[in-house]
Amino acid sequence: IPSSKLLVKGGTVVNAHHQQIADVYVEDGVIVAVNPNIRVGDDVTVIDALGKYVMPGGIDPHTHLDMDVGFTATVDDFFSGQAAALAGGTTMHIDFVIPLNGSLTAGFEDYEKKAKKSCMDYGFHMVITKWDETVSKEMELMVKEKGINSFKFFMAYKGIFMINDELLLEGLKKCKSLGALAMVHAENGDAVYEGQEKMIELGITGPEGHALSRPAMLEGEATARAIRLADFVNTPLYVVHVMSIDAMEEIEKARKSGQKVIGEPIASGLGLDESWLWHPDFEIAAKYVMSPPIRKRGHDRALQAALSTGVLQLVGTDHCAFNSTQKARGVDDFRKIPNGVNGIEERMHLVWDIMVESGQITPSDYVRLTSTECARIFNLYPKKGAILPGSDADIIILNPNSSFEISAKSHHSRLDTNVYEGRRGKGKIEVTIAGGRVVWENNELKVTPGTGRYIQMPPFSYLFDGLDKKDAIYLNSLQAPVKRVKAST
Amino acid sequence: IPSSKLLVKGGTVVNAHHQQIADVYVEDGVIVAVNPNIRVGDDVTVIDALGKYVMPGGIDPHTHLDMDVGFTATVDDFFSGQAAALAGGTTMHIDFVIPLNGSLTAGFEDYEKKAKKSCMDYGFHMVITKWDETVSKEMELMVKEKGINSFKFFMAYKGIFMINDELLLEGLKKCKSLGALAMVHAENGDAVYEGQEKMIELGITGPEGHALSRPAMLEGEATARAIRLADFVNTPLYVVHVMSIDAMEEIEKARKSGQKVIGEPIASGLGLDESWLWHPDFEIAAKYVMSPPIRKRGHDRALQAALSTGVLQLVGTDHCAFNSTQKARGVDDFRKIPNGVNGIEERMHLVWDIMVESGQITPSDYVRLTSTECARIFNLYPKKGAILPGSDADIIILNPNSSFEISAKSHHSRLDTNVYEGRRGKGKIEVTIAGGRVVWENNELKVTPGTGRYIQMPPFSYLFDGLDKKDAIYLNSLQAPVKRVKAST
Amino acid sequence: IPSSKLLVKGGTVVNAHHQQIADVYVEDGVIVAVNPNIRVGDDVTVIDALGKYVMPGGIDPHTHLDMDVGFTATVDDFFSGQAAALAGGTTMHIDFVIPLNGSLTAGFEDYEKKAKKSCMDYGFHMVITKWDETVSKEMELMVKEKGINSFKFFMAYKGIFMINDELLLEGLKKCKSLGALAMVHAENGDAVYEGQEKMIELGITGPEGHALSRPAMLEGEATARAIRLADFVNTPLYVVHVMSIDAMEEIEKARKSGQKVIGEPIASGLGLDESWLWHPDFEIAAKYVMSPPIRKRGHDRALQAALSTGVLQLVGTDHCAFNSTQKARGVDDFRKIPNGVNGIEERMHLVWDIMVESGQITPSDYVRLTSTECARIFNLYPKKGAILPGSDADIIILNPNSSFEISAKSHHSRLDTNVYEGRRGKGKIEVTIAGGRVVWENNELKVTPGTGRYIQMPPFSYLFDGLDKKDAIYLNSLQAPVKRVKAST
Amino acid sequence: IPSSKLLVKGGTVVNAHHQQIADVYVEDGVIVAVNPNIRVGDDVTVIDALGKYVMPGGIDPHTHLDMDVGFTATVDDFFSGQAAALAGGTTMHIDFVIPLNGSLTAGFEDYEKKAKKSCMDYGFHMVITKWDETVSKEMELMVKEKGINSFKFFMAYKGIFMINDELLLEGLKKCKSLGALAMVHAENGDAVYEGQEKMIELGITGPEGHALSRPAMLEGEATARAIRLADFVNTPLYVVHVMSIDAMEEIEKARKSGQKVIGEPIASGLGLDESWLWHPDFEIAAKYVMSPPIRKRGHDRALQAALSTGVLQLVGTDHCAFNSTQKARGVDDFRKIPNGVNGIEERMHLVWDIMVESGQITPSDYVRLTSTECARIFNLYPKKGAILPGSDADIIILNPNSSFEISAKSHHSRLDTNVYEGRRGKGKIEVTIAGGRVVWENNELKVTPGTGRYIQMPPFSYLFDGLDKKDAIYLNSLQAPVKRVKAST
Ligand SMILES: [Zn+2]
Ligand SMILES: [Zn+2]
Ligand SMILES: [Zn+2]
Ligand SMILES: [Zn+2]
Ligand SMILES: [Zn+2]
Ligand SMILES: [Zn+2]
Ligand SMILES: [Zn+2]
Ligand SMILES: [Zn+2]
Repeated sequence: IPSSKLLVKGGTVVNAHHQQIADVYVEDGVIVAVNPNIRVGDDVTVIDALGKYVMPGGIDPHTHLDMDVGFTATVDDFFSGQAAALAGGTTMHIDFVIPLNGSLTAGFEDYEKKAKKSCMDYGFHMVITKWDETVSKEMELMVKEKGINSFKFFMAYKGIFMINDELLLEGLKKCKSLGALAMVHAENGDAVYEGQEKMIELGITGPEGHALSRPAMLEGEATARAIRLADFVNTPLYVVHVMSIDAMEEIEKARKSGQKVIGEPIASGLGLDESWLWHPDFEIAAKYVMSPPIRKRGHDRALQAALSTGVLQLVGTDHCAFNSTQKARGVDDFRKIPNGVNGIEERMHLVWDIMVESGQITPSDYVRLTSTECARIFNLYPKKGAILPGSDADIIILNPNSSFEISAKSHHSRLDTNVYEGRRGKGKIEVTIAGGRVVWENNELKVTPGTGRYIQMPPFSYLFDGLDKKDAIYLNSLQAPVKRVKAST
Repeated sequence: IPSSKLLVKGGTVVNAHHQQIADVYVEDGVIVAVNPNIRVGDDVTVIDALGKYVMPGGIDPHTHLDMDVGFTATVDDFFSGQAAALAGGTTMHIDFVIPLNGSLTAGFEDYEKKAKKSCMDYGFHMVITKWDETVSKEMELMVKEKGINSFKFFMAYKGIFMINDELLLEGLKKCKSLGALAMVHAENGDAVYEGQEKMIELGITGPEGHALSRPAMLEGEATARAIRLADFVNTPLYVVHVMSIDAMEEIEKARKSGQKVIGEPIASGLGLDESWLWHPDFEIAAKYVMSPPIRKRGHDRALQAALSTGVLQLVGTDHCAFNSTQKARGVDDFRKIPNGVNGIEERMHLVWDIMVESGQITPSDYVRLTSTECARIFNLYPKKGAILPGSDADIIILNPNSSFEISAKSHHSRLDTNVYEGRRGKGKIEVTIAGGRVVWENNELKVTPGTGRYIQMPPFSYLFDGLDKKDAIYLNSLQAPVKRVKAST
Repeated sequence: IPSSKLLVKGGTVVNAHHQQIADVYVEDGVIVAVNPNIRVGDDVTVIDALGKYVMPGGIDPHTHLDMDVGFTATVDDFFSGQAAALAGGTTMHIDFVIPLNGSLTAGFEDYEKKAKKSCMDYGFHMVITKWDETVSKEMELMVKEKGINSFKFFMAYKGIFMINDELLLEGLKKCKSLGALAMVHAENGDAVYEGQEKMIELGITGPEGHALSRPAMLEGEATARAIRLADFVNTPLYVVHVMSIDAMEEIEKARKSGQKVIGEPIASGLGLDESWLWHPDFEIAAKYVMSPPIRKRGHDRALQAALSTGVLQLVGTDHCAFNSTQKARGVDDFRKIPNGVNGIEERMHLVWDIMVESGQITPSDYVRLTSTECARIFNLYPKKGAILPGSDADIIILNPNSSFEISAKSHHSRLDTNVYEGRRGKGKIEVTIAGGRVVWENNELKVTPGTGRYIQMPPFSYLFDGLDKKDAIYLNSLQAPVKRVKAST
Repeated sequence: IPSSKLLVKGGTVVNAHHQQIADVYVEDGVIVAVNPNIRVGDDVTVIDALGKYVMPGGIDPHTHLDMDVGFTATVDDFFSGQAAALAGGTTMHIDFVIPLNGSLTAGFEDYEKKAKKSCMDYGFHMVITKWDETVSKEMELMVKEKGINSFKFFMAYKGIFMINDELLLEGLKKCKSLGALAMVHAENGDAVYEGQEKMIELGITGPEGHALSRPAMLEGEATARAIRLADFVNTPLYVVHVMSIDAMEEIEKARKSGQKVIGEPIASGLGLDESWLWHPDFEIAAKYVMSPPIRKRGHDRALQAALSTGVLQLVGTDHCAFNSTQKARGVDDFRKIPNGVNGIEERMHLVWDIMVESGQITPSDYVRLTSTECARIFNLYPKKGAILPGSDADIIILNPNSSFEISAKSHHSRLDTNVYEGRRGKGKIEVTIAGGRVVWENNELKVTPGTGRYIQMPPFSYLFDGLDKKDAIYLNSLQAPVKRVKAST
């Protein structure tokens, strides 16, 4: 039986707000002390972290484990996906509940079941695809009783998930009243549909047609629209998978004006470019198909820069894994290729290599982007996202002088491919501690189904601070109704 | 019988590309010569223009004469509205044909009848409110046989004119194939509806509620959306009545990227601000109700600056006149106030005073913004929009040292009010010559119903130049379809 | 004898990274614990903070106490100025050492003497006004032995402090090598001189001439220049007293590109506008004379917005106090009015009222802007700028439901006027604890000369993190020198 | 004897404001008529232009013929350079007079002599390198008696031509009072000097060191500075050789604000990139050395886009030709390589190919960018820059279906190399008519020294329109001097 007492010794403890050389003492899954030179008894497992970074475990805000897409489901379930996550230094994720036959409650129960086998902590967002009184009431229920504080709206996938502006406005209003965060998948679905038709007409049926059918301007358009509608309602907005300069610049503009908009780039958007979709081997090309598409070289660098300057706030993955045989469904028509790439296991290493090793951000920034800000946005800080007395003992130890290499052969996901196949970089997560348990050490996983906990997320995160003041100021500013001399005569 | 030969003598002849002191000689409605010191016989009427500007008559790209809005119609018909126009130096306008029971042809015939009483030249745009095969074919007919080269789409007026993105995409594609210009009224109709509900709920039922219910961000949103969809289709776009910084900046961004987008501010947007809508006298407040609304102070100056720097290209009016009794319909509910302000008679004076007298633009710019650019956009240049040999003899003489004053008492529109009541400024149009006839002189109008001509506007204006090259370059850039080693096996 | 043990009980403890309800326990000038429900013995002085904010004391990065300007000196010395600061919730300031007869060492010794009477902690920046080998060596001495980690360069004050680009480049290189932060007063001094001449020629000799002679574009120009030269050298830059949109936008642009630029607005720039300079009473107008000038309305709001969105990072005061009799020197010529306004006592209240009460920022942001970020920039965090175990016990208690009023009659500065005379606002700092001593309570000051400590500031703050990586990447990117086939033949 | 009567028949006559199919009739060096189907007698030489473009001859605003640089002089004199120009469709250029021993008059006389051998029309700008009363008076003389309406200031070339901000301000004021256009070579000379030192220290002595020593940010800086100083003085500014995005964006920003700033990209900036400077063969690399340097790929495309959207207004060449032996002077030190590239002969073809063939601009735009706008800026329109009755008969005939190829073997400059060696493109200038004479036809030049005329350029071009109004509005806006109750007592 492993000890429930741990001491992580001599490392550089990094929080989003500060870094210092210190020991971290853990008891029963919780961090008890963070100080230099903590002395402990023999019953404590001591982990040496000298010369290494001790940081909060990663939180992935955007995953799709065990997601049913009708003709098939993603290959990683709540166990395999989470095991992969832990091997990559991520100790919590937030998955998207899909309503079942239109019912939020049924969807929630479905995901509760799926998540039974969890080996790490997780939370849920909820997808909204239609609008009526029942949906509205179920949203309230989800927030008040089920620990959900975010709802996602799809502006694309015409005929499936796509909602129109009227529904989006209703959703935004409801979110605001509940203190829940509205999230959008932002692409103009009508134009995407048009673009797909055009590509097929041009005889472009391969994976490259996927990218060509939904250019960045359509992501920019929908992002701009969602932002303005959220501004109109005066409620915070979270834009998932920001893949393009176009979308990023809209977020930048809104934030500059003081609007509360969160932009989430994902690992694949930061580390890949669309050229793979032109690969002559369909199997290779197809594995890069996701929406919005991975963009042309240049977008990746711009998204990195936006992360480093605070225009974007946190990094997700949209981990949504389909095997080659599943992807092959669209061999004659890119529209039939199931959308999604892996990332839950690779995110933490990639962000370190791409962002910290290049001098774009500091380790403190890294912690903020991969963990702390996610915890703050979804109202879990400082329980999650920090190495502070009282925080959950979700901890990673990263050796900046070691290196990593990614391959489907060695990864822990069930996926038979990897979009980062062969990629190497600096910085290696050598230890992952989740809930006070050492689950990854010496390149070995020690995970147990059922040990992961569902983390309820309370509404009214910091993004809602000052909102009522702004509403009051707005109402005062109207100088209306005007009292009119001539009444209706 | 007035002579059909005229000599405008000694003025500063201003074209968009150059100004010079010269005489202008006219025969049979057409300019024959523009030279210094033209000598003519005794049969020629000589008009002295010494010390004055001799410029092309104004062209108003945006009017609604004799428009039926269901419960009533605009008070200015094709005679009274045009007479007013001529008194204000405008010698041509382009009106919007509304389909009749869904039929473009019927709508066109309806407007043909309305226009029989015309006393000046006019052209037509056509409004598109629904989509099917018939509409598509009628659009072709309008362009190929009826002299129409522009179609307008409303992104607002939910439940009446409003079209969705799917229809807009179809419309843009059709416009492109016909060489016709797509025009949009850009406001997010769903959000406007929501905004109206909110105002009513807040008890704000007066005219100020009109402005509050549809803020500038909603105009910006729809403008951004239309621009991107036009870019997606690669066809030029004309944004009517640009009223806000928000919309203007979207146009600026698109033009900076090389996209062909035309922005039309209107007289009321340049010269007024929303404060009138808060006027305690309903009758006064109501006359300023139009959509998009006249904006806060600051938007007017920014739109002026955008005109002077080329971000916006021409000035219209959206002349759409309703009397006080008509406006009174919405005394208890701003949603029932018929939308529209006057301007067809005032535009030329206002633009001179606001833009030239302030040093923001030169007289050449003035000609460009009020006449030449409109002629170029709608493919009439240099027949219209220029004082060159061969051009139509539509000429104004403006005295920069004289001044004007606007009042419902003295204006020539049938409207019982004027949104510019009491306004004075420098620069007076002393003479208007339309089709070679002196129709305005010594503050007197000499107009005859039936003398105005319908001006057919051919498709493929200069805005379409190079479009095929761009399409070809785009197709080449795709590097698709990719030849794949493994075919579908 | 007051106890050296304090317990601040039941307040909302606010740090830049988090806020929580907790007690703060202090011993011997240092914070020992921050936890809910700390139990202490009877020897501990307990201060009730229920319903109030407990925050780190303010740090003012920009003051001029006891500064000799040749014909006179500022009226507040290190005792009176600091006393005023403490009454206003500021517990540390950083003053500017002026070299004496060109000697940095002599200047430093001069300021050491002036600061003997200090009643609160302070640090020093050093001004650089000329360049030679001695200056270069003294800079090194200041950093390595005297605890100075920042040097200021004046781009204005032609003939007095003004340096040219050549010197600025030398200074920037030296700063970089020392890990010291370069600071600039950014105005184009040549153009300011030209502007002053012009105003005098126009007969504009009053205080309004001061503002008119040095418009915002000149601040923008110099800011842009300094930023680019700092980028050229690749070293961080700190722009003092950002007074205009022009300067702010340059900082924004640089930060967007990833450059390390810090922008410091000051209280007067956030809370005042230039209209005071047009006041018909010279005495009133003259008290607002400072450089760069307080700007037109609009700049204030834009600077506030920039603070709230992270474009600007911290708030100073440029406290530089001259009495009416001193200001009167320029009664016939604005160029002779000594430049400077008060602020050291008012800053903390003003920033709360202007920024937090308006909903623009949260209390955590407030702490960051008034204290934490300053501590981080000058490498004092978390000793200063935080309420954490181990931090100095510099603490304020702010009652958000109380209010303040500013007047020369009641302020603690020696100044006979106050630029905020009569101003009221919400939020009152009821208690100030400096170095573990309660120095301000019940509107009473308890300060003792000599109790303030000189705080050495080590070089290489977080702004220098990753700089070497960037330099290395830059050098690698050169692909030079190229090996040439033909050598010099 | 060639006829002095010409008829250019059946071509598409392109002016900046319009294009039409028409004949052009010329007598005695002047265009007499532009009409379809002009009938002429047998004494008229008829040139067939069917299917071709008939356009105004190019005007190159920026050349250095026969320029003495101390140790050597440019290889093209006023005959060889102009002959090359004519072969490439340019029929006028404006060269820079360098003062002789500080005397503007002596410099002017020197260039008068150099220009005696001219075979095409030319004008002069004057360079200003120092400031005193004499310079000021000579500037007046140049404008009032010598036909010069533009003065150039160098912000780089430290120790040679470089002026500081004080001199630039004086120069701008003088230019304004004379109605003359101020021009700047915009690079920060102090920083360039620093950059050169740095490269030498790094051992980078080859041509690539030239580019590395003066990065785009330094061009951006100086451009921003010159623009603001010109704004401060309120006088128009012309930025020569805009080579970078950095400079272009500053111009864009200024123009957006309504300031009168002209940006001149040059052929090499539009058509080349810096990679040549890294060429392993010194002789090849060295021929690309010019200042500001040719920039990285990306700048070229951005400058093209800026031209097409009106951010930049006309294209020059900075033709400044040095042979390989002259360039070899700097074989061991890039600082000694004489700066300059060719272009006077290639410009017209390159701009057509790069801009028109790519669909970025129309033929009318081409005429504007290569001829008309230059004529307008330097106050020569419509004598130059137009095909209108009364204009000088400077005409080119371009065959859009033919093609060109550039080579030192076939070009007409005396230069032994060509920076465009081997370049091919579409569009061939088949005929050049200068002053009514056919000087280039069937790939043959027929030029005679002494036939070129000096073209005086009057001050107060259109750029000065409205300037006095703006000054008046500015003065009114000051609301100063304030009348003060207490006078100096
Ligand atoms: Zn998605
Ligand atoms: Zn997803
Ligand atoms: Zn409309
Ligand atoms: Zn309309
Ligand atoms: Zn200063
Ligand atoms: Zn200062
Ligand atoms: Zn130059
Ligand atoms: Zn040059």
